[in-house]
Amino acid sequence: MNRVTARRRVSRIRFDTAETPSVSVREDVLAVEEPLEIRVGGRSYAVTMRTPGHDVELAAGFLVSEGIVTRGEHLAAARYCAGATATSPAGTPENTYNVLDVGLAPGVRPPDPAQAREFFTSSSCGLCGKASVDAVRTRSAFTVADDPLALAPELLATFPDRLRAAQAIFERTGGLHAAGLFDGRTGELLVAREDVGRHNAVDKVVGWALQHDLLPLRGTVLMVSGRASFELTQKALMAGIPVLAAVSAPSSLAVELADDGGLTLVGFLRGASMVVYAGAGRLRSENRDGADGASAVVGQDGSTGATSKAGAA
Amino acid sequence: MNRVTARRRVSRIRFDTAETPSVSVREDVLAVEEPLEIRVGGRSYAVTMRTPGHDVELAAGFLVSEGIVTRGEHLAAARYCAGATATSPAGTPENTYNVLDVGLAPGVRPPDPAQAREFFTSSSCGLCGKASVDAVRTRSAFTVADDPLALAPELLATFPDRLRAAQAIFERTGGLHAAGLFDGRTGELLVAREDVGRHNAVDKVVGWALQHDLLPLRGTVLMVSGRASFELTQKALMAGIPVLAAVSAPSSLAVELADDGGLTLVGFLRGASMVVYAGAGRLRSENRDGADGASAVVGQDGSTGATSKAGAA
Repeated sequence: MNRVTARRRVSRIRFDTAETPSVSVREDVLAVEEPLEIRVGGRSYAVTMRTPGHDVELAAGFLVSEGIVTRGEHLAAARYCAGATATSPAGTPENTYNVLDVGLAPGVRPPDPAQAREFFTSSSCGLCGKASVDAVRTRSAFTVADDPLALAPELLATFPDRLRAAQAIFERTGGLHAAGLFDGRTGELLVAREDVGRHNAVDKVVGWALQHDLLPLRGTVLMVSGRASFELTQKALMAGIPVLAAVSAPSSLAVELADDGGLTLVGFLRGASMVVYAGAGRLRSENRDGADGASAVVGQDGSTGATSKAGAA
Repeated sequence: MNRVTARRRVSRIRFDTAETPSVSVREDVLAVEEPLEIRVGGRSYAVTMRTPGHDVELAAGFLVSEGIVTRGEHLAAARYCAGATATSPAGTPENTYNVLDVGLAPGVRPPDPAQAREFFTSSSCGLCGKASVDAVRTRSAFTVADDPLALAPELLATFPDRLRAAQAIFERTGGLHAAGLFDGRTGELLVAREDVGRHNAVDKVVGWALQHDLLPLRGTVLMVSGRASFELTQKALMAGIPVLAAVSAPSSLAVELADDGGLTLVGFLRGASMVVYAGAGRLRSENRDGADGASAVVGQDGSTGATSKAGAA
């Protein structure tokens, strides 16, 4: 069963010459997008549009983001609901593998039935930026502010190419977001996941870590394609990840939340350059002399750095 | 009140020379992301993370996507709830402008109170691909399959640059998605909107059209930055838009839904080339001879086109 990609006959139109466009008909490979209903103990909890594959990780990571589980043993079981069927072209009902029921271990408090709606609030983030920021800080079982990771910007700069290299499906479809978890000291890529939804890719990464009982993810870097939203920053904090790096821009609320939670937030991470939006104190260059063999590139207030050019655009 | 962008002191790290990175500290402009709670008749209906601005359009377009309104007169009023306050740094409560209450006109059926949860399902799209596709086809008040628009690919190819040119905020922040509505015959850009969420940008465009009583949007092209998801395809169909064009790849379910609803779906629309995934029959070149002065570039089955090179990759 290969449901991660789908084939489709398409027409490619090119304007190589000025007069008439040239048209080529070919088979194209698409990233599959399908809904996944996540149930907890038989009760419907959330529906997300995702790329099939690593569904159990996705559900596990989602429950970490929601503050329901923090250890692998908190999950007792996960199974696709056979009752959730669609009718195949042949007219026979078949399992769609789009409904996953997660069983929590005894003693783990299940989400309140009324929380299915509350989930919506927390995922989309509540009423007011400030209130949500406070709520997240209260809810997370982990603290990242005290994570002593010293991250070399030279090392961080290698992550985008390595994440892209791990993106098997993107190469074929151009349609998937990626999330990768790196060891912040050695630079080792621990896991990479792809999905049509960036938040799903992050949930899959976090769910993988939960299954390996690695939470809180101290000393790690979460790297994502695209932008850094409030939601992704929230997910990093809920998993105890001290550094979030994105290829594109962060939003204002993502920066605010990172600041508040002591998370290092890096944007526009593209090969030879990057922009540090919060928690700059963790970036320590390997090529600089310091007491511990590495010194700060940028101070928390953005003032340090031997070659710094304050105010330069 | 400028809440569309926010300023932030950041550190830019560059590796121009091999040895040590250079650091420049500067002010950066961020795209603002804040939650908007949409209420209908005083009842909480949905929360979305959006960039402030055009909130009434956003709510209106969202209600079109939900199948609740189809005409401007269906909306009687929209007002920010003054009761929804946050405490300012000065300690005084202030309106956050993050809760918008929409009043429906008499006779317009409000969403079922129990539908607040159903919204979450429909926005993220339902239980199973097939079921959702069927549900949307049933629910939309408009049909796009019979829209006779003949769209010149030469004209369509000009849309990405023109949408980008209209993106005032993206230029400053690099953090916003855009949606633009074009007249498919003249190529006129009717409206463009930006948002941290692509679906919000589309809702704002559709809400603008609703307020001008332009639904169904026959003969128009909806152009979006980034990818074409199931959700965006659904929104186009709900507004009666016959063509959806995206800068990047569509998902499998977006193509399936487009096919099913008679929508023309174009992806990888980038200057000199594009890929047609569904409804290719609407693409008719201006430079080809035909009975009506324009002939098909690609047949519905992908077979037509004088210079077509079948099978060429």
